[in-house]
Parts: sequence; C-alpha cells; structure tokens
Amino acid sequence: MIAFSNDFAYNNNLKLSQTQKFYSKITKKTILYYKGIKLNLSIVFGGISYEHEISIVSAITIMQKLGKNIQVAHYIFLDTNHEFYLIESHNMKSKYFSSLEYKKAKKVELGLGGFYETGFFGKKKILHTGLLLNLIHGGDGEDGVLAGLFDFYKIQYIGPRLEASVLSYNKHLTKLYAQECGIATLPYYICGKQTTYNIPFSLPYIIKPTCLGSSIGVCVVEDEAKLEYSLDCAFEFSDEVIIEPFMKGVKEYNLAGAKVNDAFILSLVEEPAKKDLLHFDDKYLDFSRTEEITSAVISESLKMQLHKAFKKIYNTTFEGALIRCDFFVANDTIFLNEINPIPGSMANYLFTDFETLIQQLATSLPKKHAIAINYQYIHKIQHAKGK
Amino acid sequence: MIAFSNDFAYNNNLKLSQTQKFYSKITKKTILYYKGIKLNLSIVFGGISYEHEISIVSAITIMQKLGKNIQVAHYIFLDTNHEFYLIESHNMKSKYFSSLEYKKAKKVELGLGGFYETGFFGKKKILHTGLLLNLIHGGDGEDGVLAGLFDFYKIQYIGPRLEASVLSYNKHLTKLYAQECGIATLPYYICGKQTTYNIPFSLPYIIKPTCLGSSIGVCVVEDEAKLEYSLDCAFEFSDEVIIEPFMKGVKEYNLAGAKVNDAFILSLVEEPAKKDLLHFDDKYLDFSRTEEITSAVISESLKMQLHKAFKKIYNTTFEGALIRCDFFVANDTIFLNEINPIPGSMANYLFTDFETLIQQLATSLPKKHAIAINYQYIHKIQHAKGK
Repeated sequence: MIAFSNDFAYNNNLKLSQTQKFYSKITKKTILYYKGIKLNLSIVFGGISYEHEISIVSAITIMQKLGKNIQVAHYIFLDTNHEFYLIESHNMKSKYFSSLEYKKAKKVELGLGGFYETGFFGKKKILHTGLLLNLIHGGDGEDGVLAGLFDFYKIQYIGPRLEASVLSYNKHLTKLYAQECGIATLPYYICGKQTTYNIPFSLPYIIKPTCLGSSIGVCVVEDEAKLEYSLDCAFEFSDEVIIEPFMKGVKEYNLAGAKVNDAFILSLVEEPAKKDLLHFDDKYLDFSRTEEITSAVISESLKMQLHKAFKKIYNTTFEGALIRCDFFVANDTIFLNEINPIPGSMANYLFTDFETLIQQLATSLPKKHAIAINYQYIHKIQHAKGK
Repeated sequence: MIAFSNDFAYNNNLKLSQTQKFYSKITKKTILYYKGIKLNLSIVFGGISYEHEISIVSAITIMQKLGKNIQVAHYIFLDTNHEFYLIESHNMKSKYFSSLEYKKAKKVELGLGGFYETGFFGKKKILHTGLLLNLIHGGDGEDGVLAGLFDFYKIQYIGPRLEASVLSYNKHLTKLYAQECGIATLPYYICGKQTTYNIPFSLPYIIKPTCLGSSIGVCVVEDEAKLEYSLDCAFEFSDEVIIEPFMKGVKEYNLAGAKVNDAFILSLVEEPAKKDLLHFDDKYLDFSRTEEITSAVISESLKMQLHKAFKKIYNTTFEGALIRCDFFVANDTIFLNEINPIPGSMANYLFTDFETLIQQLATSLPKKHAIAINYQYIHKIQHAKGK
C-alpha cells in the first residue's frame, strides 16, 4: 500500500500530509473505501505516424472501458504539427479530428511534471496531467520519443520506457533481443536499399519495413518475379527491410500482460482470426475492439509455455507498460513474432478486469535511479589550482 | 551545395528567398566568400548524469577549438533539475556552475524549432537555437532522451539519434549490435541483482555497470573473494552488470569520425596512454584535452582494418554524430570495446581540422521521413456509416 499512498499524492497533486491523513482514514475504515476513490489519469493520443488515425480510434474505444475506478481527467491530442490540444470528452469523435475542428480546442505544452496552459497570468499547470497513458501507436509513441519526453519532464506514464521502445519498434533489434532472452524467432534477412539480395531461405517470403507496425508496407512474395516490386513498396516506408520465410498454416497466439508490483497479470490467450495476412483495414478494426473474446483452445502445457515466454520477453525491460506479444507455434517450438508495447486499445478485450489492471499498473510504475551531483570533481580541480 | 543552401537557411533563421539571393551571390563571386560566413550553432551541456561535471569541462574545452568558421551562438546549460539556462560565454568557467551562480542566468525552454524565452510579451524564440551540438555525456545526452526531445521539437542537432543512443549506451546491446555488424566483441556475462553467478571464463574479470560511461562503477577483480564486493559497487549505479575477461597487455586503439555527405572523415588512430584501467579522475582530465596527439605507430594494414571496423559500426545508425570507437587488438583480431557517441570534448584532439569537420557535419545532418496524414481511413469509415 505504500506505493499507492505516494503515487496517489503524486497523481492527484495532493501534498503528502494530505495524503497521509487520507491514508490513515482508509486504514481506519476499510480498504473498500479506497475503491470509491477514482484514480486520475490523462490519455495522450495522435502523433506523427502512419498509425495516427488508429491512435484516435484506440482512444475513443478505451473511453468505453474506463470510468468506474479510473477517471480520465484529460484527453490530450498530439497533432501532425507536434502541438498538443486538450480535447473535451464530448468531442472524442473521429470526425472532430478528421475535420480539423480540434484546432479550436485549448493548446497545451509539456513542462516539468505535466502539461501547462499559457494565459494572461503566465503558465498554469493542468491538474492530473502528471500521470499519463501513452496511447500513441507507431512513431512518436512506440519509437521512444514520447518516453524520452515524459522521462525528461519527470512525468509518470503507462507505456514502454525508452530502451523498451527501441527494442520493440525495430524488428531487427526485436530478433536480437528475443534470442538474448532465450526465445526463438523465425530466420530473417535484413536488406538496405543498395545491396544485392542473397536470401538464405526459400519462397514464399514475407517482407516488412523494419520499423513500422500495423501491417503497413508488409507483403507476401510467392513468386521471385514479384520480389523487386514488393521491396520497393516496403522501402517506401523504411530504409531497411526485413525478410522472413512466410509459414502458411502456422498457429498464431497473442498474449498480453503487465508486471504489477513484481507479479505478472496476464490476459487470456487469443488465437487471432485465421487469415493469411491481416491487412491494414482489418487491423484498423482491431483497434476498436471492446468485446471480450473467448480463450484459445490449447493445452495447459502450451499455455504455460506461452506464459513463460511472455515473462522472459517482458523481463524488467518492459516494466511500466502493458504489452502484447504475438507468438507463432510450429513443430512444438514457440517463436516470437512481434512485441506491441502499446497494443490497439491496450488489448482491453483480452482481460476480464481491464480497468483494475490499469489502476494497479498506474500505481506501480518504475522509478528512475536518483543521481546526486555535488560538483566534487570541479571543487577538487579548483582546489588543486588554488582557486 | 544544395544541402548547404537549405541548411544554411534553417540554421540561420533566414527565409529561403533570402538564402537564394545570398546563394546566387556566392556562386557569382567565389566559393571563398562562403568561408567568411560563420555557421551559427548552440552547444547544450550539463544534464542529470554521473557525467554532469565532465560535460561542463567538455563545453569549456571545446570553446577553444571553435570560432574561426563556427560561431557558438549560445551555451545552453541543462541543470540538475532539468531546467535550461542561457550562459554568456564570459561565464563559461567551472566555478560558475559549481557555485550555482548559473541560476542567475536567463532561463529558457524547448519548443518547436529551438529554445524560447518567456517575457512580458509572451514567448520569443532565441535566434540560432535551431542547430545544436549535443555535448551531454552519459544520461540525458547519450541515453536517447535529448535525441527524443530534439526530434520531437524538430530541432537539428549534431549527436546520436535515438536508436543509436540506446545501442551505444547499453553495453549489452552494444555487443549484440557489433556482432550483427560483423565486428567481434570480448565474451561477456550479464547479471542482475538476484541471480546466482556462473561466469563462463576465468579470472581476472572486469566488471562494469551496463549503462554508464567514464569508468564509473568499473573495477577489475583479480581474486574470487572480491567478486561480491565489486558487484555491489557496480550495482550502486545500475540494475544490470556486465562482466568480461580482463585482458592484460592487450593493445588498445581509439578512432573517431563521422559520415559527411556519404563519405567518412576519420581521425588519426590513437593508442591511449597505457594503464591497466583508466580511473574516473584520469578520464576526467581526458575531457579537457585540446592538444593534437601523434598517430599510433601501427601497420598500414591494421589501420585499414580499424577504418573498416569503424565504418561497419557507424553504418547508417550513427549518422548525424561524431563518434569515437574504442577497439582492442589481440591475436590479430579487432574487438569493439565501446562506442562513445558523444566523446569527451568531441575528441577534437584526434583531428587535424576539427572545426571544418563540425561545420561539414552540421550541414549534412540526417532528415526524417515525411509522413502524410490525410484521415483517409476515418473518412472511409464515416462514409461506410453514411455520416
């Protein structure tokens, strides 16, 4: 409960003494009292990325899943010019953004500890923006830029930290990372624009830009003659392309989860709808899902193996984030396909009590090492110089 | 010259039409005219890191190496509270910072395209802060946080991009990256705080925190009995520790360089002063070097091999940065020891014409892919719904 007490003060902009009073009140009454207190957080969405629009859909979707224990204090939209806007909840409709009506909303800026508005009397901090949910898929959100910003401005956030972002955003690095965690990956071949190709496995291939999600620029090559064209498509989006063997009929399983106070909360295992390859339009619909799904029909042993693989990947690297790992299973081996460190609508449909998970995650976020700077080396030099 | 023309406009806050006039003026006269025009850039230093103080020393040192072709428009200090201050050049003395006198300097803030000051009449952009030299060693500067910030605010900068920062900051990831580039590394063993140790090579060891530079928390273990204590020291600074065999008498060579308009400009090869292990105090002095050194006495063939290894590591990943690679050579094999993406005082002492290198690098910085967002998916859904 200590974590709750401190973070509660932080998130709700109370002074610690107030919280302490409040906290002793809870312990005196019962812990049930706490359940009546909503946790305030703000959701950041949009961003400059090919997934800008699906981030809007994600944010609208997640509105429907929060509200009982979590109060979404603000919806903060990052537009395509990298300016932030405070969106009122009744305006959270896709048309409000596509019509550019959002430009009438209040502009806000990042600063130490949260977002600020500037008025006649200077800058004013906006309440409840010290705890954020990063819901920006793709560039800005998943490539580490927002993690860097939030860390710099000392803002707490649910989402991948900077290093975790880089490792999951770049599919080449994901392979290296997974192997280092002891999880198999499919063989792969990396190519840049100016190389000749010497692919070490046979057709069909699947071609992906190294650094994009949501099936953008992805295609399957069944025929050598189409290779050049498919590479060109992928190079539209990325300077580096990853080629893998395309395994038909392979089993695919998704599993989401987060570490909360050193224990894992995992979702049910989903077997995604069978399609040779999900296209962007299908994936787009995927981001607006709210209905709970039924668990994949798999053996208890496979389920345990998937859990184990997930935990190895999550490790300590993804602390603070709710991630979804997409696995392949073939010949009794589990392969990591990809890590979604900010899955569509936070994979809410995979959890039986999504809101409690977010609440628990929000109150057990990783802390940075404190660094004391005391100028002892400069003092030493000045002393040596007799200054 | 195209790159020069555009970047010149950007860096000097001129409108393009002005530059075009200026540019045609240059071509009409001679290119020598251009040599009289100083490039304006601002230096960012300080930061929250164990290397805060050596960043100050680096900035003071580099002052002496610029000024002929490059005008340092501003020195921008990031203090230990993550606030930026504009430091006048006559105040660039270590005591000004250690005495906290810097707090009297003008506070500035990051915004789109550069730094801003806030006065009675609102926010005003500070000239020549759209092109920066990132001189923050260690945390903030080298871990990707500043790269994220500068990318977000669309500011041009000399320094490692976000992914390059993560790959060089984390020594474990550096190993994976180097191997993937085809460069050997010493064997290693990673351990976290709660694991039992099963080190797969024999004494002596060198122990390093995974994510720190400048020899902080590093020690050599000659005796098994000292292992536990040495690990504790390293864990003071990092949750993860990397252990390597400590090879006495190995040859060590440093090489710095940058890619400028698709061609490499490399420094001479330095054989650093022989010591078993550089301590923080020695390294500290290393950050204030300005005297040119003499090249290591090595065969032309080894020099070429070091050049080749450097280029493989630099690849496209480190574009925009002037980096220094530290290599070991043993048994005719080159091993990468570490990548310094922001070396002390930018390794100025390794180059015969340091200022021209910085000038050229500043005018050939990598550009981000442009992403067009046109709301076509949202429009499509609205159309399907008949809205």
